[in-house]
Amino acid sequence: MSPSKTIRRLEVVSPVPADIDIANSVDPFPIAAIAEDLNLGSKHYDLYGKYKAKVLLSVLDDLQGSEDGYYVVVGGISPTPLGEGKSTTTVGLCQALGAFLDKKVVTCLRQPSQGPTFGIKGGAAGGGYSQVIPMDEFNLHLTGDIHAITAANNLLAAAIDTRIFHEASQSDKALFNRLCPPNKEGKRTFANVMFRRLQKLSISKTNPDELTPDEVKRFVRLDIDPDSITWRRVMDVNDRFLRKITVGQGPEEKGMIRDTGFDIAVASEIMAVLALTTSLAEMRERLGRMVIGNSNAGEPITADDLGVGGALTVLMKDAINPTLMQTLEGTPVLVHAGPFANIAHGNSSIVADKIALKLVGKGGFVVTEAGFGSDIGTEKFMNIKCRYSGLVPQCAIIVATIRALKMHGGGPEVVAGKPLDRAYITENVALVEAGCVNLSRHISNTKAYGVNVVVAINKFATDTDAEMNAVRTAALAAGAFDAVVCTHHAHGGKGAVDLGTAVQRACESQSQTLNFLYPLDIGIKEKIEAIAKSYGASGVEYSEQAEKQIKMYSKQGFSGLPICMAKTQYSFSHIPSQKGAPSGFVLPIRDVRASIGAGFIYPLVGTMSTMPGLPTRPCFFDIDIDIATGKVLGLS
Amino acid sequence: MSPSKTIRRLEVVSPVPADIDIANSVDPFPIAAIAEDLNLGSKHYDLYGKYKAKVLLSVLDDLQGSEDGYYVVVGGISPTPLGEGKSTTTVGLCQALGAFLDKKVVTCLRQPSQGPTFGIKGGAAGGGYSQVIPMDEFNLHLTGDIHAITAANNLLAAAIDTRIFHEASQSDKALFNRLCPPNKEGKRTFANVMFRRLQKLSISKTNPDELTPDEVKRFVRLDIDPDSITWRRVMDVNDRFLRKITVGQGPEEKGMIRDTGFDIAVASEIMAVLALTTSLAEMRERLGRMVIGNSNAGEPITADDLGVGGALTVLMKDAINPTLMQTLEGTPVLVHAGPFANIAHGNSSIVADKIALKLVGKGGFVVTEAGFGSDIGTEKFMNIKCRYSGLVPQCAIIVATIRALKMHGGGPEVVAGKPLDRAYITENVALVEAGCVNLSRHISNTKAYGVNVVVAINKFATDTDAEMNAVRTAALAAGAFDAVVCTHHAHGGKGAVDLGTAVQRACESQSQTLNFLYPLDIGIKEKIEAIAKSYGASGVEYSEQAEKQIKMYSKQGFSGLPICMAKTQYSFSHIPSQKGAPSGFVLPIRDVRASIGAGFIYPLVGTMSTMPGLPTRPCFFDIDIDIATGKVLGLS
Repeated sequence: MSPSKTIRRLEVVSPVPADIDIANSVDPFPIAAIAEDLNLGSKHYDLYGKYKAKVLLSVLDDLQGSEDGYYVVVGGISPTPLGEGKSTTTVGLCQALGAFLDKKVVTCLRQPSQGPTFGIKGGAAGGGYSQVIPMDEFNLHLTGDIHAITAANNLLAAAIDTRIFHEASQSDKALFNRLCPPNKEGKRTFANVMFRRLQKLSISKTNPDELTPDEVKRFVRLDIDPDSITWRRVMDVNDRFLRKITVGQGPEEKGMIRDTGFDIAVASEIMAVLALTTSLAEMRERLGRMVIGNSNAGEPITADDLGVGGALTVLMKDAINPTLMQTLEGTPVLVHAGPFANIAHGNSSIVADKIALKLVGKGGFVVTEAGFGSDIGTEKFMNIKCRYSGLVPQCAIIVATIRALKMHGGGPEVVAGKPLDRAYITENVALVEAGCVNLSRHISNTKAYGVNVVVAINKFATDTDAEMNAVRTAALAAGAFDAVVCTHHAHGGKGAVDLGTAVQRACESQSQTLNFLYPLDIGIKEKIEAIAKSYGASGVEYSEQAEKQIKMYSKQGFSGLPICMAKTQYSFSHIPSQKGAPSGFVLPIRDVRASIGAGFIYPLVGTMSTMPGLPTRPCFFDIDIDIATGKVLGLS
Repeated sequence: MSPSKTIRRLEVVSPVPADIDIANSVDPFPIAAIAEDLNLGSKHYDLYGKYKAKVLLSVLDDLQGSEDGYYVVVGGISPTPLGEGKSTTTVGLCQALGAFLDKKVVTCLRQPSQGPTFGIKGGAAGGGYSQVIPMDEFNLHLTGDIHAITAANNLLAAAIDTRIFHEASQSDKALFNRLCPPNKEGKRTFANVMFRRLQKLSISKTNPDELTPDEVKRFVRLDIDPDSITWRRVMDVNDRFLRKITVGQGPEEKGMIRDTGFDIAVASEIMAVLALTTSLAEMRERLGRMVIGNSNAGEPITADDLGVGGALTVLMKDAINPTLMQTLEGTPVLVHAGPFANIAHGNSSIVADKIALKLVGKGGFVVTEAGFGSDIGTEKFMNIKCRYSGLVPQCAIIVATIRALKMHGGGPEVVAGKPLDRAYITENVALVEAGCVNLSRHISNTKAYGVNVVVAINKFATDTDAEMNAVRTAALAAGAFDAVVCTHHAHGGKGAVDLGTAVQRACESQSQTLNFLYPLDIGIKEKIEAIAKSYGASGVEYSEQAEKQIKMYSKQGFSGLPICMAKTQYSFSHIPSQKGAPSGFVLPIRDVRASIGAGFIYPLVGTMSTMPGLPTRPCFFDIDIDIATGKVLGLS
């Protein structure tokens, strides 16, 4: 292992300047230099400008024989609405490992949605002296993956409504004539994708002319039940007025109106597919088997039934390659996929993690972030992502802040945009100690997977030693391998060296096993109940709708899929205001849905918004371009 | 001028194979080699993979002192629904100039919409042995420009509805408090973009606290009339069910429903802005002054009134750089912008043409295509695009086919997807001669701009010498500089060498003047009437709605803009079935709209669809990926 050539020493100032100012104060290395440092040959990546590159999946074939590095997942305690610095810690830890501890390291991050960048949240590239740069490119189009998802998602949506429309106005014969038109010699052929539908219908004929009238009917009529359609259109913009819409009101659509809506693009099942796929061939299969609704007879209708699975794959063929970027200190980052953390599994992609593990090799480190608190993010990382990837982590980090622990201990409500209560900026050890029940349950739940748990105490300027000692004591008592204070926001990688050392020890002392929370071959309800138990629930209550859906998915043969709970991140329970470690509650399942292509069933615990809105003064008011330099202004 | 190093000699076979097979039979040169051949330094372009690069606008600053090359525009006669090979001729001519006549040459093409690629039309990279490669990249995401337009267009749309929503539920004071919130010290500031609105309101104060209650009211209340909103959402997918929709039906939107719809992305005004802009600073201004509708008092409301002009520019900052690709024979191509040819001006970008003219330098050639027939495409090229760019073309090409001329001479209807009538594949000189009235009017109209007109007869296998001679005779009689048969589809650049030579002579013998069809400083109606006269109309008839709009735009101060007619391409008149050279008709103006940011008024002659649909068997049925090679299959 040669020492890295692309290390940059930061000169930190105090107080910490604005994120964009720090990001703009550094000239990034050419991304080709970062790639070279990872021993990537030019055939293994495509440049997208000077500071981004797509790493091609072919690198996995060439490194097949190499050993993997250590695999570290970053989760968090149940957060406040302000966030506890999980991304920042992920980046800071990697800066420490790469720039101070002389380790090969790759950070794996999710691509943020562009909607919130212009809306209320701002960017997601980390913060302070622990950031991914260039932060504007990270937060904007990146290399077009979300745009590709939008295009693919909406092509499928258009295919659904148009197919219903054409089926409504044409005879079986006319449909067949159009779907399999005779060529100049009068000979008909099936398109390749049509053989998938024929196989599903158990029709083994390859010559369209040999189909019986009944077979023609079954082949051409998808007979989609409009009320069963779960596929919605998407857009990477916070547009609340698209949450519920009526389509088809033009005169040419002949009254075929339908109520539907848009989700934000990262909520598309195709994003979840991208995150969970393991190869181009496998992505083709996943995209083709996505279920958009049912036929009137109750059969699931797939993208391949509509003939569009191949085209979706073509639209996604470049998106499958992760994007290489860099941290402020010049360590490599792979940005790839960003599925929702409630209706989807909230983790970056399997292929990025796999590539990263080969690139760092034996003794190197891959640090990947799991969305939301670890009750959701780490749970899904283990039971969904690792189940599909076959990868086993050695260490799980739980990021905690004194602020959030005080909230769990009974501190006043924390509201975004309002000043923090005094309780959060003055010492109160008792409040911290009381809140550690939240941390403790996250630790024991995570430890149950068989990994070593390291608690990262993300220190704010107002936190005191006594408060931090209380956290450390509680963490070790709950079974953490270690608990370490870190100051990467203020100091960059240097502030996370202790965390890096703890993570290294945790990885080195860990065997290679992963104990899933539930096996796949039990019923949907049993799996839901296993997860609910980990939340502290005493039982689960299903709505009528949920019961109906579970019955349907079981009948359709989908009960073997893992479960992806759509639950609030603010509490172990379904009630955001229940802080600490609630128990004895009954978890209500309002509805159950499925992402068959991505490969999970997702029960809804409460109402999940899948399309954010814009406030009165969105972030976009501050965002502009400096005409003289071309630099982006006002991104936060 | 050094001879080009990136020239490839094609080995053509007969009959001509499928487009995708020809495209896949050639290994493209690395785009860096093409760039080097144009003397582009690495600081002047960004790679997007191995075969695409974005050429940065900064190259214009560095080449400011260089002379421009010759500027050639390609138009066509009124086409059949099958198209007469305008793009193919554009590419073939450049292959001839660059690979056979030893000239520096750059082809400037529009980026095609992804919708039709998966719908009914297929790709748009040329055809046969005259194509842009890699054709899959050309037809798919390219470098993300259309996706950027979609994102910007829809951010503006979300800003409109959300602003109306927030204004409806908040007092002036509450709005002001949110738009200009006090900081920790209680001090309010205006965001930079807000000064644009303040200036419009003639408020010169810079301290928010000094605004009078009346000024606060005027500042915070855009008071948008929902019925006046002309801004629609867009999507780069053929989705007919979005043509007319109702938004805002979710319970959180409190009944604020509104009828609106989606256009295909290339119909966005932002696409027209991109095509007509001349610099980053000027694009910022154009985007900010786009009008989305009126206030209840009848004042135009702009993107900058909504505070979003800067953010739109940030979303478009990379899209302003044209994409460098190559032809089959290795000559350079700049692909940039693709505005609709009816509701917009149908020409590729000014910045691409400007860069290209500097890159080829004195004695070199830039060939750019104008959409639709030359009655629309070339007319808008001259009166809109060249007016904004200040560039003057030396030569205009008119592409003609025997097939289309026979149709204009009275041949039977030509319908896409149906076999051609015998009249079109057997010799019929009389029919061709009769149809030349269409060509002749295109020639004399185009010649009136002061350019030399060269007719390119795009030869099909069934065309006879006698038929082609008839066209040549008619063309010269109508004042064409030359009329040349070309066979670039079958033979590549070699088949367009005679055309190349004619174009060279035409350019060399031409002085630098451009006579516009109308001056800008006359009334909207006078301008419309000047264009109508060029169509052969004896007069113009305005609907009540059109009268109302003309009055409104004149009152709002927009009457000095050029006119962009939204008319069918299939006839000089508004009736597609009127072939040849109709005259004496009265042109009906159904409605008049405006793209203020792009900078034109567009009268609607008839109904224009701005969102295509999918047929029963869309192209996507054939499109898939070869898992083994990663190559795209089935694109046409």
